[in-house]
Formats: sequence, structure tokens, C-alpha cells
Amino acid sequence: MYALAEELFPITRSLTGPGYRETLHRLEAVAGPMQQHRFATGEQVFDWSIPKEWTVRDAWVKDAAGATVVSLERSNLHLVNYSAPFSGRLPLAELQAHLFSLPDQPDAIPYRTSYYKDSWGFCLTDTQRRELPAGEYEVLVDSDLAPGHVEVGEVVIEGESDSEVLFSTYCCHPSMANNELSGPVVVAHLARLLREREQKPRLTYRFLFLPETIGAVAYLSRFGERLKDNLEAGFVVTCIGDPGDFTYKRSRRGDTLADRAAEHALGHAGHPYELLDFFATGSDERQYCSPAFNLPVGSLMRSMYATYPEYHTSLDDMSFISAPALGDSLRIYNDILAAIEANEIFEATHPYCEPQLGARGLYPTTGGASLDALHLPDMMHVLNFCDGSADLLSVAERGNRPISELRPVVDLLVSHGLLKRAEATGPRQPSWA
Amino acid sequence: MYALAEELFPITRSLTGPGYRETLHRLEAVAGPMQQHRFATGEQVFDWSIPKEWTVRDAWVKDAAGATVVSLERSNLHLVNYSAPFSGRLPLAELQAHLFSLPDQPDAIPYRTSYYKDSWGFCLTDTQRRELPAGEYEVLVDSDLAPGHVEVGEVVIEGESDSEVLFSTYCCHPSMANNELSGPVVVAHLARLLREREQKPRLTYRFLFLPETIGAVAYLSRFGERLKDNLEAGFVVTCIGDPGDFTYKRSRRGDTLADRAAEHALGHAGHPYELLDFFATGSDERQYCSPAFNLPVGSLMRSMYATYPEYHTSLDDMSFISAPALGDSLRIYNDILAAIEANEIFEATHPYCEPQLGARGLYPTTGGASLDALHLPDMMHVLNFCDGSADLLSVAERGNRPISELRPVVDLLVSHGLLKRAEATGPRQPSWA
Amino acid sequence: MYALAEELFPITRSLTGPGYRETLHRLEAVAGPMQQHRFATGEQVFDWSIPKEWTVRDAWVKDAAGATVVSLERSNLHLVNYSAPFSGRLPLAELQAHLFSLPDQPDAIPYRTSYYKDSWGFCLTDTQRRELPAGEYEVLVDSDLAPGHVEVGEVVIEGESDSEVLFSTYCCHPSMANNELSGPVVVAHLARLLREREQKPRLTYRFLFLPETIGAVAYLSRFGERLKDNLEAGFVVTCIGDPGDFTYKRSRRGDTLADRAAEHALGHAGHPYELLDFFATGSDERQYCSPAFNLPVGSLMRSMYATYPEYHTSLDDMSFISAPALGDSLRIYNDILAAIEANEIFEATHPYCEPQLGARGLYPTTGGASLDALHLPDMMHVLNFCDGSADLLSVAERGNRPISELRPVVDLLVSHGLLKRAEATGPRQPSWA
Repeated sequence: MYALAEELFPITRSLTGPGYRETLHRLEAVAGPMQQHRFATGEQVFDWSIPKEWTVRDAWVKDAAGATVVSLERSNLHLVNYSAPFSGRLPLAELQAHLFSLPDQPDAIPYRTSYYKDSWGFCLTDTQRRELPAGEYEVLVDSDLAPGHVEVGEVVIEGESDSEVLFSTYCCHPSMANNELSGPVVVAHLARLLREREQKPRLTYRFLFLPETIGAVAYLSRFGERLKDNLEAGFVVTCIGDPGDFTYKRSRRGDTLADRAAEHALGHAGHPYELLDFFATGSDERQYCSPAFNLPVGSLMRSMYATYPEYHTSLDDMSFISAPALGDSLRIYNDILAAIEANEIFEATHPYCEPQLGARGLYPTTGGASLDALHLPDMMHVLNFCDGSADLLSVAERGNRPISELRPVVDLLVSHGLLKRAEATGPRQPSWA
Repeated sequence: MYALAEELFPITRSLTGPGYRETLHRLEAVAGPMQQHRFATGEQVFDWSIPKEWTVRDAWVKDAAGATVVSLERSNLHLVNYSAPFSGRLPLAELQAHLFSLPDQPDAIPYRTSYYKDSWGFCLTDTQRRELPAGEYEVLVDSDLAPGHVEVGEVVIEGESDSEVLFSTYCCHPSMANNELSGPVVVAHLARLLREREQKPRLTYRFLFLPETIGAVAYLSRFGERLKDNLEAGFVVTCIGDPGDFTYKRSRRGDTLADRAAEHALGHAGHPYELLDFFATGSDERQYCSPAFNLPVGSLMRSMYATYPEYHTSLDDMSFISAPALGDSLRIYNDILAAIEANEIFEATHPYCEPQLGARGLYPTTGGASLDALHLPDMMHVLNFCDGSADLLSVAERGNRPISELRPVVDLLVSHGLLKRAEATGPRQPSWA
Repeated sequence: MYALAEELFPITRSLTGPGYRETLHRLEAVAGPMQQHRFATGEQVFDWSIPKEWTVRDAWVKDAAGATVVSLERSNLHLVNYSAPFSGRLPLAELQAHLFSLPDQPDAIPYRTSYYKDSWGFCLTDTQRRELPAGEYEVLVDSDLAPGHVEVGEVVIEGESDSEVLFSTYCCHPSMANNELSGPVVVAHLARLLREREQKPRLTYRFLFLPETIGAVAYLSRFGERLKDNLEAGFVVTCIGDPGDFTYKRSRRGDTLADRAAEHALGHAGHPYELLDFFATGSDERQYCSPAFNLPVGSLMRSMYATYPEYHTSLDDMSFISAPALGDSLRIYNDILAAIEANEIFEATHPYCEPQLGARGLYPTTGGASLDALHLPDMMHVLNFCDGSADLLSVAERGNRPISELRPVVDLLVSHGLLKRAEATGPRQPSWA
């Protein structure tokens, strides 16, 4: 994952355009066959209009002596993203209105965009800005804003059921590492892990690579109703590559399968984490959890957006993320996926009193194996609590046990005819609470 | 408020009679036009019977030498309230059965009443009592108990809706300051504040000034059914003038609009406070929250009745309350009122994904105003959570934001057509919980 | 109780057989007339089959020199319970496969059973085992496994209602004191206490003495449907004689009358205690709370099974339990029973405002009795909260008051016509929450 992030890091990405397209292409090589959904400039998607496509070839500011002050070539953060074409000379005083820096972080280049306003600008460190001599400057923004497309890349791994799980991430940020190359590389590898499994999954998995906000809005305008019908759980994957503690932001409903699976996986993963209720700022969960969709979509992050000083600056570089951190993140997302896969509803076939385990070789004889070796407490737990009234995640939570350890015990008991899959009839209330 | 309390302090009040009537009259001068509801002696009000009216002209105890021991003139607490007429001479031993003092608070005159028993008595400090010489004493209680009326003063400020908010306080205590002149003066000024507003309020506000217990019982016997139909929130205002921390006693149901608004206002007021579940002793909330009424009535106090040593003694004098404390109390009651006024149900007009705020000048452009200056997080919060499923107080609590700051943001978004008032259809369940 | 335990201690008990029968007989002398329910060998009870009856006359191991190594006579724990008959000579190496000891507790004889496997064995201290010399040993197990019966002893005390309360304990353990003679002796005495009351109880009480697991399964196979119809609360009484803190294991549903009464009694008893949610291992609550029964059965214990080192060993002897501990345990079980008896639903006859207590001599006059002496706060509490919407336990919990103190106040108010029993219409939701 780290190598893939290194490969993608230098590309000049934006909502649209060649750098974005190139990024999708490289992610497809890992994640698997990717369908492209295209939304044409000017198309109305809910309250939004698809913007023009942006292509930038060159951009720089030179001082009176002809020396380059900042340039796209040095860092693609120097140019305000989606800057309109411009060429001309202007004195420092006028140039200042087009410059952006961070007085509180004098050595960081900020990340700025101007998607929906026809303007241009440059970002630079505050240290450099304060040293700019008076005089005339020459500016070039060699860019196009022309009819084109917003594109969404989608990888689908079909399961036995139409019920779906969504992982959504965004690929529109230029050279920043945690926000946002960590999300795309983790999602691409999660898709690969699932694709490489021998067995068809129980549920259908959908992996989305899109430009933030407009991509999610556009996708939902075309496919939102299908998600409302089929989505069991979803996650916005972002800011997941740094070594900070985990942060899980719940879905708007707060108790969806997404939340239950994520909190279950985190609770048994051994890493420190924080749980946050949904709030209306943030990333694409804003769209998935807009009131009329109200989808079961949460977001597992590490250091959350807007909470760390490197956020949206040139300091969010490849040294801010790490291979081990990306590995742990992939592992927990995979645990969440596994918890969702394992989460069926079972019921005991002998619900009146206990079945006689000994008669089936499932109970220790006098001097025999220890109870623990036979998972006796787990067996008794699932035989009692799996009664068709609640799913296995509820049963696992009730016993404070990881579903990953209970599911094999369930499978053993299914093979002995002591448990069976319950007829699915939607969400139920546990009989024990 | 403090000046009004000073003016009212010396008056000899009781459940009925000239002192009570005089008090109502002076409160009307502040609160506004007051309707008098009269209940005649002997009238049956639920399980109670309206008592005779009490008038007292003079009362004293003189010792054998003719020196005045205690007298109504020195302190109206000296006479047991509602004492029957009496005149005679009796030895100290017999007099003792008619004397009341507090051995644990030897310098306080206790406050005692004998509303429903035909008797007389005097209260004095325990220090004075212990020094009374043996011998014969002369006693005069020049009072009448005669057919008359219990009276309830009511100030109503009509709103656009028949739904009502109630503030109830009592005016039957003689010379004690916190319990109870603080309640009447705060309620009178709260009514004045509301009356002086230019705009008609959304809800109808009812301010009651009555004698404790019998007044509330009588009022409810005549108007209780109307309150059951219309009352959204109500408060018994008592013990609200001392500088102690605030105490909010919840309504019997515990989660009514009264409770939600009071807890919200306290939560954002910056004063220490304590929350108590409803209990069946106390003041007139006992009647409003009797089981068949079970009205949404709580009580915001400062130092609660029966918890401070000055309570029901001559030590609860004008030095025990203060103008700043009364001011803070009025402010919080006004915050509660404002929270209730602001608490409508709104819903987003663009509930599928976010509306494009930038297109409406509501989103910062590149170098523009800061997000905070534009209240962007608040805008996004109300656009997401106002979905017609819950009232604005719920939305404010969900974001841990004061409704007083969210409501202007809501109004701005209403003016941009992004939010609208929801059709009112009674209490709803938030879609997010 | 301690004396009864001493009397029962030496008897060799098992699931079936003469020792078990003898134990029931002696318990009947205390508990009162006991009905015997018999289940014949081979009878199918749910998933189980009634085992053969076990009779043992003698059992020992002798060494090559003819010296007795272990014998039933020395301790009935030496013989693995339900050992099949055997007689023969074998070298130490072969004998070892039939020996059980506890290396971690070298001076304890473990308690082992072999109910459902045809085998024999002996238990001994690890210290003794490690000193056994090589050589040949002679072994005798003079036992029978023959058709017979599993027997359940039942004492019923009829009440005015068919609704039932169950106390279930087990009598199949040989010479161990806390687990399990404490349960039988406490239950026998609880039955006696109830039988000796002059008044017929409101509910019907059922006391079961049975062999663990198979007894409960068998009883439920015959009477389980009746329990589902009538059982209001039940308790498995076990491990209740040692001086450890109390442990209450909730019923599977967690909020049944059993749980509420037990937690209420513990909350006001003044002993330290711990509350545990139901879990699927343990004693006969496993059967009562199997998913298709899901009965309101919890278990009040002191030091819980499998948590103390003496458990299931010879160290759980008469010195591990004590008369004062048994006394406290009986007292709390009796408090629970009394709480259930007192737990009717009442409603105020004057629910609109307070009734006038003074007119009925229930309110202190001026110089009269103190409020507390008249239980005024309790009177006002029950008059307000008893409104036919919730039972007296809820009302008591709402006021944090013991039901044992509120019930006499309720009775006083019933006698004054201010409260009456509500028509019973099943569980209700308190009007105040």
C-alpha cells in the first residue's frame, strides 16, 4: 500500500481531468476491473451542476528578475486547484490578493481549491511570502476549463445476496498522503483481498473511487435509490494511513450494521480508538447520510480530518503515513468486512432445555479435554442466545466475544444439527433484552 | 425586582385577606392586567373545601408587667398564620402550648400556619422563649375568620397559537424574602419583559399568582381540563432569589418540553446547577403533576425549599436574596421562554445530498470569510438534522449547540428557501436515533 | 440450617439412588409435605434420556500390601460419582488412567462424575497420588447401574392466585457443603417460614429439590408449559452458605420480576453484592432460561460456582459455610419473597390534585407530630405515583424506598379510602417515565 501511495503521490489530481483519470487507472490495477460512471459538464445532480473539466499544463510566478517564485512543477499544491487560465504581469500588491499562506504554520504550503468560482491563485509558505520583494511579477496559469466529465470508478464483487456493503473513498486531492491517498490505497487492497478469496462472499461488495462531494452527489443521483434498497453497511475511507489512534464516526442513525460491525471490530482489535456520533461536516458521509438517504454509512479513520496540523498542507506528505499504519488499517477494515459476512441469524433446533452435548461428543468426559479446548462456554452461549431473535453480532456482543471466534463454533453446531440458519425476516428484537 | 420585593416584604400575607389582595395589586402594576378568579368559602374544589377568609388587625402577648413580649407589629411571623381570634390571660405553663420556637436555631422566629384547624399561636426565638418569666400573660389575637374568597391572579399574553406555557408562583407567605417573594417578583418581571416585546409571541403565556396549594387546587378545579388540552410547558417559580446554585426539579413525566427547555437553557447558561427528578413533596407542582393531571410542569429554583437553614424562618429576610441573583434567575427563565418560542419543527427542502451553499453565497470562496463567520458548521448541522422528524431543541441538543444561536441560522436558511417549517403533527421520533 | 447441613453432609448423594432419596426425605421433614415426581430410566425428556439409577455399596483401592489407598468409606468424593461396577487388579500405570487429582491444589480431593459414560474412577489428593508406589493395586467398585428413577421433590404452598413463584435447588452432590447443601437447607427453611405464616400468601409458591440438570430438564418436560403460563418469578438457590459477598445472576430477560425483586431486596439489605447479567453456563437456570422457556428465573448466590478455589473439591466442607451466613441468605431470600408478595398495583382514588390529608388526621397540625413520624413523604409519594400504571416495586424504586416500608403506608391509605387495588391487566408502563 505504501508503494502504491508513493507511485500516486506526485500526480496532479483534481475533481476531474487527466491526473484524476491516471489515478483511477493505477488503482484499477490493484482493485480489479473498474466500471467508469461518467457525468457530463452541466448535468444537474440534485442541487448541483457538474462543473467543467480542468486541465493544467503549467503554472508559475516569476519575479522581476525572472526567477521562479513558485511553480506547479515544484509542488502541485502551489497552484490553487481549479485555477482559471491567466497570463500577465502585476505588482506585488495586486498579486497578494491571489496568494495564500498560513501565518500560524509559516513553513507549510496550504491546499486551496476554487472549484465553483472562476479565479486563479497560488499557495506558498508564509516564510517565503513575507520575503517577496516589491516589484512586478509575471504569472502564468496554463489551464483549461472545458466541457468534460466527472468520473466515478466502481469495483463490484458480487455475492450470493443482493444486499450490499459499500466502501467509498476519494481521489481528487493532489500531493497529500494521509488525506487523501491513504483511503484509495486501503480500499484498493481491501477489494483485492476480497477478490482473491476462493469463496463467493455472502453479500455484494461495492468499492467506489470518486472526487469528494460532487462525485458522491453525482453517484447518488444515479444510484441512490438502489443503495436505499440494498445497502446494509457502508464506510467512507479517509485519513487512514497515519499512525494515530483510530476514530470511528458513526452513521447518522448511529446503530446501523456499519456502526455495530465497526465498533465490534475495534473493540476486539487491541488498538486505542475513539467513537464519535455523526456530525454534519466531514467527507462524503455528508451525502450518504443526508436526511432523505440516511444510509447506514460511517467512517473509520485514524487522525481525523481537520484535527491534525498537517491536514490540508504540504506537511501531509509521505512521511506522515507509514506502511505499518496502513497495514493495521487494512486489517481492521477487513475485520469489519468479516464481521458483516459472519453476521447471519441462527436459531437453536432444541430450544427447550439444553441439548445433550455429551451424546454428540461435544462435552468433556471425566478425564477428557478441558472445557475451554472444546469451546464449551461458547457452545453454550450460542445455543442459548441464538434463538432466531437476533443476529450473530448481537449474540457476540451479548457475550463480549469476538464474532470471529464464535462463528466457527456456530458452524460446528450447525454441522451437528443443533443450530440452523433462521428464516430472514428483517431486524428483530433480541428475546433477552 | 429587589425594590419590588422590598416594597412587598412588610405586608402581612396569608392564603386570603387584605394583605394577599394588596400584594396581587402591586404585582399587577408590573406584570400587566390581571384577571382575578374568585373561589368562595365553602366551595368544594376536588377533595378540598375553600377555607374562610382571614383578617388580622392586631396580635400580641404581654407579660405580667404589661410589657409586650411579641407582637404582629414587630414581625408578622410572630403570629401563627390563620390564628383564630382570642383574648384572655393565662399562666406561662398554659401559654407554652401556643408557643413555637426552634431549639436548633435559637435566634430564628419560625413560620407556622394553622389553616385548617381552629387554633391560635405565637412564634418566637427560642432564646426569648427560654427567658420568659413565670407568671400570667395577656394575649390578644384580633382576627376574623369569615366567609370570603380565595383569589387567583392571572396575567395572559396571547400568542399566535392556543398552545400554552405556564408560570405559576405563590403570594401567601408573610415577611420572608426567598420563599416567597422571589417567585412573584421574577414572574411579574418575566411577564413584563414578554409584554414589552414588539412581536406577538408564537405561544400563549399564562402567569399565575396564587396562594400555595389551595390556590393551585382551586385553579385546576376550574381550568385544569383546559391546561390538559393546551399546556406545552409550565414552571412553578419559587425560591429563586438567593445566590445559591440553580436546582431544576423535573416534571413528573421527566422528559416534557418544560424539562427539555429548562435543561437546555441551564446547560448553556454557565451557572452551576443540579437536576432532580420529580418527587411528590414540594410546592404547587404537586397539584399540576398529580397523577390525573400529570402536566408538563417543572420548577427551576436556586436553593430549594427545606434545604437551607433560613427556610421558613425570620432569617429568610431581604439580606438572603440579592438583586444580581434575581437578575440571573430572570435571565434563565427568559432563556427558557425563548427556547420554547424558538422550538419549531423545520425540514430541509433539499434533503437528497447537500444543497450547494456556494451558489447561494453561503459558502466561503477561496480567500473569503472564515467558515465560522458564516456559521457553516451550524448551517450544515441544521440542514442535515432538520428533516421534519424532530423539533429544533432536539436538533440543538444533538449538536450540543444553544438553540438561541441555531435559530438565526435556521431563519437565514428559511429565507434562502433551504429550510421550511414542517407541518405540525405532534411529537415525532428523530430519524437519527 | 447449619445443623441440617451437618446431618446431610455425610450422605453419599448422586443424581439418583438411596442417598439422594434419603436426602429428600430429611428435607421434607423441614420443608413440609413433598410430592415426588418420578421419571423412569430410558424416558425421553426433551433431548435427554433418563439414566439408570446408581447404587453404590462399597469402593476402594488397595495397594500391593493390602493397605487401603482410598475408599468410599473415608470420603465419598474418592469415588468418581456414577462409577460403573468393577473389580480387579492392575498395575499403577494402568490405574493412573482412572485417577483424578488437582496438581494446583495438591491437598484437595476433586469432585468428578461420569453420569453418561460407562466408566469408573477414583479421586484423591495430588500429594497422595504422587507418593503411590509402583506395583499392582486391587480395585473394587461395588455398584449397580440399573433401571430406576430420577426423582424431583416438590413442596407447594398454595396462595390466593395461580400466579407462581419458584425456588429451585439441587440435592445431587455428595459431601460438599456450599455446593451443594446450602441451597437445599435454605430452600427447606424458606418453605417452612412461609408455611408457618398465619395468612395464606397472595401468590402460589413452589419449592423444587432435584438433581442438577437432568432433574430440571425432566421437570420442565412435564411441567414447563404450566410454568410458562403462571411463573412470575423464580430463583435457582445454590452456593448460598459461605460468608462471601452476594452475587445475583439475572434472568435471561434481565428485567423480570425475579430480577427486580432481588435487586430491590439486595439494594436495601446492607450487604455488599454484585449483579451479573445472565450467561449460559451455570446451574439449572440454564434450563429455565433456555430460549423456548425464557422464564423469569435468576439466581442469588454468595461466592459463585467456579469462582472460589474450594469449589468442587473436598475443601468445600462444613467449615466453608457458617450459620450466620446461612441466616443472612435466608433473610434476603425472605425479603425477596416479601417484596414479591407486597408487589400489587394500586391507584389513587383522588387523582386530581392531592387529597386533603389533614381532614383525615393524616397531616400534622401546627404543633403536632413531625412529618416523618406520620410518614408524610411516603404518603405523598405513593399517592402521587400509585396511579394504576405501575406496580408497587416500580413506585418504591422511583422513590428509592424499600417496599417493606412503603407497603404499610399503602395499607393505611387503602384503609382511609385514598388508594385502592388496581384492576390487574398485565404489565404496564409507568405514567411518569
